Amino acid sequence: MDTACKKQVKFPTMNRKLTSRKKTRPVRRSDCAVACTLDLVGDRWTLLVVRDLLSGKRYFDEFLRSPEGIATNILSARLRVLQEHGFIEKVRDPSDQRRWAYRFTKEGLPLRELLGHIAGWGHKYLPATKILEGIKLPPT
Amino acid sequence: MDTACKKQVKFPTMNRKLTSRKKTRPVRRSDCAVACTLDLVGDRWTLLVVRDLLSGKRYFDEFLRSPEGIATNILSARLRVLQEHGFIEKVRDPSDQRRWAYRFTKEGLPLRELLGHIAGWGHKYLPATKILEGIKLPPT
Repeated sequence: MDTACKKQVKFPTMNRKLTSRKKTRPVRRSDCAVACTLDLVGDRWTLLVVRDLLSGKRYFDEFLRSPEGIATNILSARLRVLQEHGFIEKVRDPSDQRRWAYRFTKEGLPLRELLGHIAGWGHKYLPATKILEGIKLPPT
Repeated sequence: MDTACKKQVKFPTMNRKLTSRKKTRPVRRSDCAVACTLDLVGDRWTLLVVRDLLSGKRYFDEFLRSPEGIATNILSARLRVLQEHGFIEKVRDPSDQRRWAYRFTKEGLPLRELLGHIAGWGHKYLPATKILEGIKLPPT
């Protein structure tokens, strides 16, 4: 195993105390830029939640209604990890104080750019795919 | 659930017969470009195998020695899925016919571009990360 593996740098955006809950991965696998990005968002669901936030969704039940059919436990877990990374925050909805809404933090804004790249790639190479409203593609 | 979910278009690169093995997902979750891309490479390991191929690795044991420490069963599964998608192929090593090597197919070449975007994003936003040799970043 390479020495790179031993450099366990904390995520820069990890600004909340981590719990010992399952599936939270506070440690980098290596210092490779690809591996570190996948440590943050490398799964089938996290970037779909990011996409939904970018397309204007804010509420738990709105994310649930997306066409991919995310399960409630997976959605809860992904929202929690995004919060723990400091990318999003959970706030009282200004228009209804009994309701919780999710929104990007300043630290989460770079995810727009990553999502734009992935959306652009998929749309370019995978036939019959579409880009949802609110997703801004990077300049080519 | 949105009607988009019902459009179960086959992956364009799915040029091999799919088996009923676990973890092979032949069906799109929706027609969103992000979801379809994640259907192909949305996990913590697949793009690391792609990265290793791009950095010049060809053999199973070379992938195993990468600093992230992929397990043999996960590596086998990811190589198989990449083959089933038609992105890579397994060939006899020209210099040693007893050995198997992996290489990109023509259909797999667009993955270079996706990996370049992800590597570029990670290097830009995650401190103390590096880009491995052989990874070409897209022009900015």
